[in-house]
Amino acid sequence: MISIGERINGMFKDVRESIKNKDPKAIQELAKKQTEAGATYLDVNVGPAATDPVDAMKWLIEVIQDTVKTPIAIDSQKWDIVEAGLSVVKNDVLINSTKSDPEELDKYMGIAKDYNASLICLTMDKHGIPQDVEKRMEFVMQIVEKAVEHNFPMEKILIDPVLFPINVDQKQPALMFDIFSQIQMISDPAPQRNVGLSNFSQGTKEKKLLARTFLTMGIAYGLNAALMDVLDNDLMDAAITAEIIMNKNVYSDSYLTAFRK
Amino acid sequence: MISIGERINGMFKDVRESIKNKDPKAIQELAKKQTEAGATYLDVNVGPAATDPVDAMKWLIEVIQDTVKTPIAIDSQKWDIVEAGLSVVKNDVLINSTKSDPEELDKYMGIAKDYNASLICLTMDKHGIPQDVEKRMEFVMQIVEKAVEHNFPMEKILIDPVLFPINVDQKQPALMFDIFSQIQMISDPAPQRNVGLSNFSQGTKEKKLLARTFLTMGIAYGLNAALMDVLDNDLMDAAITAEIIMNKNVYSDSYLTAFRK
Repeated sequence: MISIGERINGMFKDVRESIKNKDPKAIQELAKKQTEAGATYLDVNVGPAATDPVDAMKWLIEVIQDTVKTPIAIDSQKWDIVEAGLSVVKNDVLINSTKSDPEELDKYMGIAKDYNASLICLTMDKHGIPQDVEKRMEFVMQIVEKAVEHNFPMEKILIDPVLFPINVDQKQPALMFDIFSQIQMISDPAPQRNVGLSNFSQGTKEKKLLARTFLTMGIAYGLNAALMDVLDNDLMDAAITAEIIMNKNVYSDSYLTAFRK
Repeated sequence: MISIGERINGMFKDVRESIKNKDPKAIQELAKKQTEAGATYLDVNVGPAATDPVDAMKWLIEVIQDTVKTPIAIDSQKWDIVEAGLSVVKNDVLINSTKSDPEELDKYMGIAKDYNASLICLTMDKHGIPQDVEKRMEFVMQIVEKAVEHNFPMEKILIDPVLFPINVDQKQPALMFDIFSQIQMISDPAPQRNVGLSNFSQGTKEKKLLARTFLTMGIAYGLNAALMDVLDNDLMDAAITAEIIMNKNVYSDSYLTAFRK
């Protein structure tokens, strides 16, 4: 699966401090550790407190690229920060994320194509986040149509149906499963299916257990990408195992070790 | 979910010794521990080594019933052992299991009805175990038709599509998911969906991880019963969590504790 390591985010104190003091040490450590844990991408989010967020994004990416070759996911809702990130990126890159207003999709697919970037598209627009399957699937259709229009490679689109926290609405997770399987059937090749996993169980007592259980259940329905805590070993083991059960990788007795090599 | 505690089985040395020496202590302990762990049924299997299996089945059930009120699952492929078990059972009871030859279904549904018992029906017959979805669904249809014919309560039928070990055929688990969801749509009310979970990962290095990951993925598709190691805390936690995610029980921050009370 596509695992996007969430840890380099200014919401975390160590990252916030690093940005403030231009001290690369904690960032380099997180880049290395998440890479070793098997992250496909390293998410980079300057957080809400950065005084010069454009500069912070560039600095973070440069520090990471001096340390590891793992592709970057530029995580921002601000256009100038995304542009700044793209301007310094050296390897494969993912833009996290765009909403699905037609003009936003045009803009983001345009720049993503220029940089050969992958793109997370949220099934929401300026009017808000739909809470049912039908409305979300309308956004999915719109994303797919825009991708075709822009001649954008479908496999570089990651559709994120915006998973609500379980303690906000307990009916939502099962809706997601339906959406994942519908997305898989919408085109060939199909867009990828992504969620922000930590958000799902944020603030709950069984945070990790809920996250890894949702992930395995989602994988059974075709979920194949997540912004997640790749440093949580149990979570990574669960994801690897779920993909073995789905016959995505070849089973051997030492499949966990085999995957990590 | 319907959790059938697998531990009272003559395949395990402590149970085998207990039967041989007519020493009830280990059996009572296992009955208590599995009940405390949340077992819906206690499976009772005399194992292949019992010298007088009919007598052993009766003795085991009596010892268990002197200790706990948890319903018994009589686990045998031999008709006289099943009859013997039923003759001493006091509480709710499950027969584990019958094959799906028409004459077997007639016989087992007949006796199950007499004793108001639930019944596990395997999607296999004397000719063997089918390995594809279609053949298994033909057996499912046959079971459902027989239940209607016998006026047998559909919710007391547990259909078991015979899960193969993952190290035997890695394509099988995903087929199961398809079958679970098809069974749910076959009638209203639908029959229950059961698997022998430990068999799935028997002999693998990641036995417990594979078992609990399959279980959560299965629950996402409507699996709701399993012969399983209820003493494996992580497995029970995963099952409870998967059912919370499916909105089968009401979420609260202390849902694990709430369930266990």
